[in-house]
Amino acid sequence: VADKLIEPRTLKGFRDYPPELMIPRERLMEKARTVYRSYGFVPIDTPALEYTEILLGKGGEESDKQLYRFKDHGDRDVALRFDLTVPFARFAAQHIGKLGTPFKRYHIAPVWRGENTQRGRYREFVQCDFDTIGTTSNAADIEVALVIHDLMRALGFERFQIRINNRMVLNGLLETLGLAAKTKPLLICLDKLPKDGRTAVRAEMIEKAGVEPQAADQVLDLAETEGSNQEILDRLERDFGKNPKTGEGVARLRQLLDVSKQAGIPEAAIQIAVAIARGLDYYTGTIYETFLSDLPGIGSVCSGGRYDNLASLYTKQVLPGVGASLGLDRLLAAMEELNLLEKTATTAPVLIVQFASERLGDYQRTARELRAAGIAVEVFPDAKKIGPQLAYADKRGFRIALIAGPDEFAKGVWQVKDLKSAQSREVPAAELAADVVRCVQTI
Amino acid sequence: VADKLIEPRTLKGFRDYPPELMIPRERLMEKARTVYRSYGFVPIDTPALEYTEILLGKGGEESDKQLYRFKDHGDRDVALRFDLTVPFARFAAQHIGKLGTPFKRYHIAPVWRGENTQRGRYREFVQCDFDTIGTTSNAADIEVALVIHDLMRALGFERFQIRINNRMVLNGLLETLGLAAKTKPLLICLDKLPKDGRTAVRAEMIEKAGVEPQAADQVLDLAETEGSNQEILDRLERDFGKNPKTGEGVARLRQLLDVSKQAGIPEAAIQIAVAIARGLDYYTGTIYETFLSDLPGIGSVCSGGRYDNLASLYTKQVLPGVGASLGLDRLLAAMEELNLLEKTATTAPVLIVQFASERLGDYQRTARELRAAGIAVEVFPDAKKIGPQLAYADKRGFRIALIAGPDEFAKGVWQVKDLKSAQSREVPAAELAADVVRCVQTI
Repeated sequence: VADKLIEPRTLKGFRDYPPELMIPRERLMEKARTVYRSYGFVPIDTPALEYTEILLGKGGEESDKQLYRFKDHGDRDVALRFDLTVPFARFAAQHIGKLGTPFKRYHIAPVWRGENTQRGRYREFVQCDFDTIGTTSNAADIEVALVIHDLMRALGFERFQIRINNRMVLNGLLETLGLAAKTKPLLICLDKLPKDGRTAVRAEMIEKAGVEPQAADQVLDLAETEGSNQEILDRLERDFGKNPKTGEGVARLRQLLDVSKQAGIPEAAIQIAVAIARGLDYYTGTIYETFLSDLPGIGSVCSGGRYDNLASLYTKQVLPGVGASLGLDRLLAAMEELNLLEKTATTAPVLIVQFASERLGDYQRTARELRAAGIAVEVFPDAKKIGPQLAYADKRGFRIALIAGPDEFAKGVWQVKDLKSAQSREVPAAELAADVVRCVQTI
Repeated sequence: VADKLIEPRTLKGFRDYPPELMIPRERLMEKARTVYRSYGFVPIDTPALEYTEILLGKGGEESDKQLYRFKDHGDRDVALRFDLTVPFARFAAQHIGKLGTPFKRYHIAPVWRGENTQRGRYREFVQCDFDTIGTTSNAADIEVALVIHDLMRALGFERFQIRINNRMVLNGLLETLGLAAKTKPLLICLDKLPKDGRTAVRAEMIEKAGVEPQAADQVLDLAETEGSNQEILDRLERDFGKNPKTGEGVARLRQLLDVSKQAGIPEAAIQIAVAIARGLDYYTGTIYETFLSDLPGIGSVCSGGRYDNLASLYTKQVLPGVGASLGLDRLLAAMEELNLLEKTATTAPVLIVQFASERLGDYQRTARELRAAGIAVEVFPDAKKIGPQLAYADKRGFRIALIAGPDEFAKGVWQVKDLKSAQSREVPAAELAADVVRCVQTI
């Protein structure tokens, strides 16, 4: 009876990751973990599903978050998390007493947002967050810049810029200009500067934020302050340093630059950018954005900042902190565009051809010996002709094929075939592991 | 205004993973990935949410799966995946044409089931599946046993047993005994043998499967066949080998044992167990279960088998395969019970004490030098007194504290404090990295 088939398809806004994409994606996650751990950040995990009440908090508007929300079997109002920050706040409120502070965590996990999909944006994506909570020390803020730098380098990027600012600088500037009451709408406008340009943002400041044209120009002049980091900080300090907020913001940025330099970060990697506000209420201190020099248009690939209180919705314990989030899937798309992804559909460099099925035990023994030497090895499962097996090896991107039939076993040798050059060499069985280790290292 | 706090809590059946649990959990996943890759399995990922139609298939009963099912914003009937097999079948139907066969994938990802929670079972848990599809070759079946063995060893287990069987053996036995028509209810009964014991299963075979007492005894005698692997296979072949199904099943099991032995797997690691049926319709060939010798009561920690056709619901292409699934969270619970988990709340062995805040640049530079040498290092964020910083280091499980104040910087040395012995040594700054590398390796 030929039943009707169910059409195999994914939901709109969702995608599969076949090996060619998942291999580099796993590598990125592993590199991120390695860098986070190298700074002493520790992993946590939280449930994908939470009480909706917890995810939305008090002022939360569901439509903003495009929550995947439903009633579970126990009639509970539940939803899939839309970021890792809210679950971290809930987690911290529950566990920080036992964990103690300072607490440095990373969390790499999927989140879900039912928003309209654009090019390269999906309704399910992985976030890679790291945060230090329980301290207001600028050392933690400085470390975030170091982590972002080391992370980008570990991922293979050399041409990138970490743009930093401090919300205290902006707040102090607006206070000094007599615009403190309009901070919120002005910062909303300012955030659009890189995308919409000065003319549009100026018009919006006048129309929507309700400031005088002259004030809009003053704010925009400051936001567009150019020059070296030293020049920008000197000017801010000279003109606005008497305001205690701006003064402290400038001092913290100065220390960030000094310590980063002493720690060995190239000066060009970090750029003060007065215009960066990054959202509204959440951030209160240092702010970070990261742009690829060769692909600035995709936006910031690693962003974050300092906040005064992580978990005020769930606990009275004040938990200041600072952290950032790596946009893994955006980076992956960028790397694809910049041809930085090695296209391979295998995780193993070596394929053992199944030449003679009665020798399967020898093939598997040899494979396990190579694995013990640190080499990943696949044994072809079917005793087909060599041609199709080598075609498979080529298609998948194996680098070396190992072949042995009755003649080779009689002589105690293996044929080692380099799949790029298509050249074969005969190697004594006893020397095979060392030979393959050498080959794989030099390819 | 003191707003009312939202109670921070997780949903029933869900849990947080604080660092003490997440650090070993991540290690397990990394080790599983390493072993899978070493055999040439490649990673894939699929969406957490799928069309309900796809997850339930045709005969699927929602109540069986305890699906988290709801309508999304586009009024689509969607659900969270309850395993990784159904998504893999859908994935294979969609992509196998492009990917080609044989195709070996692993998939490590969370799944959700709203079932009633028991001790150690949660409604969200991680599955670690690996499968080879597109081949009926016994080489793939044999490899599954090798992977399970190497996986268990890599995870740190030495005392475990992989129990294998072949559904063809069982089917042939029942055919020979004239019980072919009752295969399905008899195998349901048989699966309960380890848990309920012979008397109960015999009664159930008579009452529910409707077989004569004598037939029940025959089946149970065969299922409980004891002896060495050779003895069991010899007896099966002698008494039932004329049945082509049993004959082929025995031959495949024999080759599995032979090749595994040649490949270097200890003979005691694999045990033929005629009673293992593992569910009903899905498996058609080799079957695998894995038990910890020191904790058999928790059940199989790695199970799987061969199937004739993975994706018949979604494609006409016949995709035979074989694979298994590691029960990561069950293993983690077992390791906790067996005291195999190293309790640590840090991923870094070294803490640099922030003795003098004006030296932060030196601390961060030294930390980055050590990181470049492969050592994970945390710099304490606050310039507190040494006592609380060392108390933090002790609590988290750091092994070494590095301390340098004005005197040390003047002399060009660091105090290297072993946190277990509480002893300190003075080490020249130029030799610090090499010294710490040595310390960390020998601890």
